[in-house]
Amino acid sequence: MTQYKVPVIPGDGIGPEIVAEGMKVIDAAGEKFGFDVDWINYPQGADHYLETGELMSEDTLKELSDYSAIYLGSIGDPRIAPGVLEKGILLAARFYFDQYINLRPIKLLEGVWTPIKDKTPKDIDFTVVRENTEDFYIGIGGRSKKGTSKEMLEVSRSLYSAKFDLDIETDSEEIAYQIGMISKEGTRRVIEYAFDLAEKRDKHVASVDKANVLSDIYGFWREEFEDVAATHPDVETDFNYVDAITMWFVKNPDWFDVVVTPNMFGDIITDLGAMIQGGLGLAPGGNINPEGTSMFEPIHGSAPKYKGQNKVNPIATIWAGSMLIDQLGETEAGASIVSAIEQNIIENNVKTYDMGGNSKTSDVGDDIARIILEE
Amino acid sequence: MTQYKVPVIPGDGIGPEIVAEGMKVIDAAGEKFGFDVDWINYPQGADHYLETGELMSEDTLKELSDYSAIYLGSIGDPRIAPGVLEKGILLAARFYFDQYINLRPIKLLEGVWTPIKDKTPKDIDFTVVRENTEDFYIGIGGRSKKGTSKEMLEVSRSLYSAKFDLDIETDSEEIAYQIGMISKEGTRRVIEYAFDLAEKRDKHVASVDKANVLSDIYGFWREEFEDVAATHPDVETDFNYVDAITMWFVKNPDWFDVVVTPNMFGDIITDLGAMIQGGLGLAPGGNINPEGTSMFEPIHGSAPKYKGQNKVNPIATIWAGSMLIDQLGETEAGASIVSAIEQNIIENNVKTYDMGGNSKTSDVGDDIARIILEE
Ligand SMILES: CC(C)[C@H](C(=O)O)[C@@H](O)C(=O)O
Ligand SMILES: CC(C)[C@H](C(=O)O)[C@@H](O)C(=O)O
Repeated sequence: MTQYKVPVIPGDGIGPEIVAEGMKVIDAAGEKFGFDVDWINYPQGADHYLETGELMSEDTLKELSDYSAIYLGSIGDPRIAPGVLEKGILLAARFYFDQYINLRPIKLLEGVWTPIKDKTPKDIDFTVVRENTEDFYIGIGGRSKKGTSKEMLEVSRSLYSAKFDLDIETDSEEIAYQIGMISKEGTRRVIEYAFDLAEKRDKHVASVDKANVLSDIYGFWREEFEDVAATHPDVETDFNYVDAITMWFVKNPDWFDVVVTPNMFGDIITDLGAMIQGGLGLAPGGNINPEGTSMFEPIHGSAPKYKGQNKVNPIATIWAGSMLIDQLGETEAGASIVSAIEQNIIENNVKTYDMGGNSKTSDVGDDIARIILEE
Repeated sequence: MTQYKVPVIPGDGIGPEIVAEGMKVIDAAGEKFGFDVDWINYPQGADHYLETGELMSEDTLKELSDYSAIYLGSIGDPRIAPGVLEKGILLAARFYFDQYINLRPIKLLEGVWTPIKDKTPKDIDFTVVRENTEDFYIGIGGRSKKGTSKEMLEVSRSLYSAKFDLDIETDSEEIAYQIGMISKEGTRRVIEYAFDLAEKRDKHVASVDKANVLSDIYGFWREEFEDVAATHPDVETDFNYVDAITMWFVKNPDWFDVVVTPNMFGDIITDLGAMIQGGLGLAPGGNINPEGTSMFEPIHGSAPKYKGQNKVNPIATIWAGSMLIDQLGETEAGASIVSAIEQNIIENNVKTYDMGGNSKTSDVGDDIARIILEE
């Protein structure tokens, strides 16, 4: 029997409840497919932070880097200012482990309601490959006082209006700025990953950018994309402005096979993607470093108001669990989880409140585990 | 009879066709409501650029600044690299005239098909107030070579992982970066505009940001928002992460009354907004400087492949025309245009191909003009 050790960070709010269902399902898959998972619990999250002042210590990160996959519930707590936990735990892990791919399947399962008219599971089935360690997520920015700001506005205006003799009236007291950065290697590796994935799927890669306005950063992205595309002549490609792609996700999701996107735009369009596949309760994500430590999570937050009610949808987390064991090499077991999720919705009509039913969180996990064992 | 002079820039692709319908309708409204518009034609666009090398000259901009409203068709041409025309004409005007508000009504008209299930005109009726001269649109960015990039990655990593003894492996050959900036005044004035608008509507302002990750720039935005909100205690407010708001636009558009957003996020979410109101053919926008020169346009592009076919939907442009004359003070005439657009769809079933019909561009303009005159 293959043995795996998997660190699990249940996290905040509903995190522990949904992760419990995910572990239950993976354990069932292990029983069925002949592997065993030793779950190693980590307390990181809001309570731990409030008690100890610690988000993710260096020791913890070093320890975690011994494993190839981490299972994460959800992070976030109303007692703590926006960004503290997200940056200190979630983004810290993404950056520390160099999880440069954020893989987000957008797939409408059979039996799931989508808010979009006239779309069926045939129409909504693509994967977003989101860059995960660069772009506007690098955390560099600041504020400046009077003077600096005037200067920056002057540079900006002069860029748009060249040699115009403009009267710069704004002499701002204060400004705030943020810097985004992408590197050649960071860009190429994620685009290459997307093309490799497309080679195994329908051979189409759509790139997302805003090269007409944020030309420095995304002009560079486009060049790297074109370079990589040239090495995959059998894969079709197109460029999509980020504003436009939000429309196509709604109107023509069937156009997409693999979508590769810079980090921030990926954050935005995958929430929209989650909605067209039935909502956040059904949207998993994998933060992947193919040669290092990956991390799998539902893409939703910690929904503190539902905590402890055994009410929320564990499917996103269970699905993330399937991606996790797939990453460990248990491909067949991974696939069996996704098909059990689907079968459970269609045949047993097991749906939590967000899907229009009244099943409990633990019912969903129980039923999916049973289906896997019985098949 | 009141006389107005209005500069019109038909622009590229389908621009001339749709603007012709807009002028036709405004002329009819003038006849009905007792004003007359003297249209002053400007040739800016792709052809003009290819012939003369000129996008928007200083002389042209100075001349245009004598007027309070410009009517713009659409800009964009496949012969010219992404960004050149957009920056040289559209963004040049937004920045030069300091059109700090980009006003985008998201309103599902009666009789229009939306791709979203179970939503009626009652549910989709809000306005996005997009900041229009700052943020990541300031055009500052660049590239650096080996060394610099390593440094920037180091700063970034250390921000996330504090004192960790990280082995920075990436020593990138090359990086590209982009800077966004918002000023105190630039942020306050657009937020104040949003609150003033909400006072006249349903007294709710939703703010958009990504303060949990781009904390420097959008933490500042939040502070300014809170400051302004404190002076409007009767207006309800909430904060929305940009990723999440894409879901609510689809699932709960009825939650929104006035949405105020930084420039780039505004660009993204208003395209999605256009889609839920029936598509880009129906989405107008106003680039407004309340004390200076404003500019009104459909938010769609120049659709070169439909050029000269008398096929595309002129409603976005006609609606933008109604915003234009409203801005000139012809409020009643402006309202009559919107209701004629609606009446024409419901009663005459006049719909262009994008709305599922086969009416011609010019039919739509003719019919709307006739309705205004006959009412
Ligand atoms: C919680 C937040 C930092 C995170 C992100 O912005 O990446 C989340 O929205 C996501 O998409 O995983
Ligand atoms: C054409 C482009 C520069 C423009 C923008 O990004 O603002 C457009 O998308 C818009 O929304 O008006």
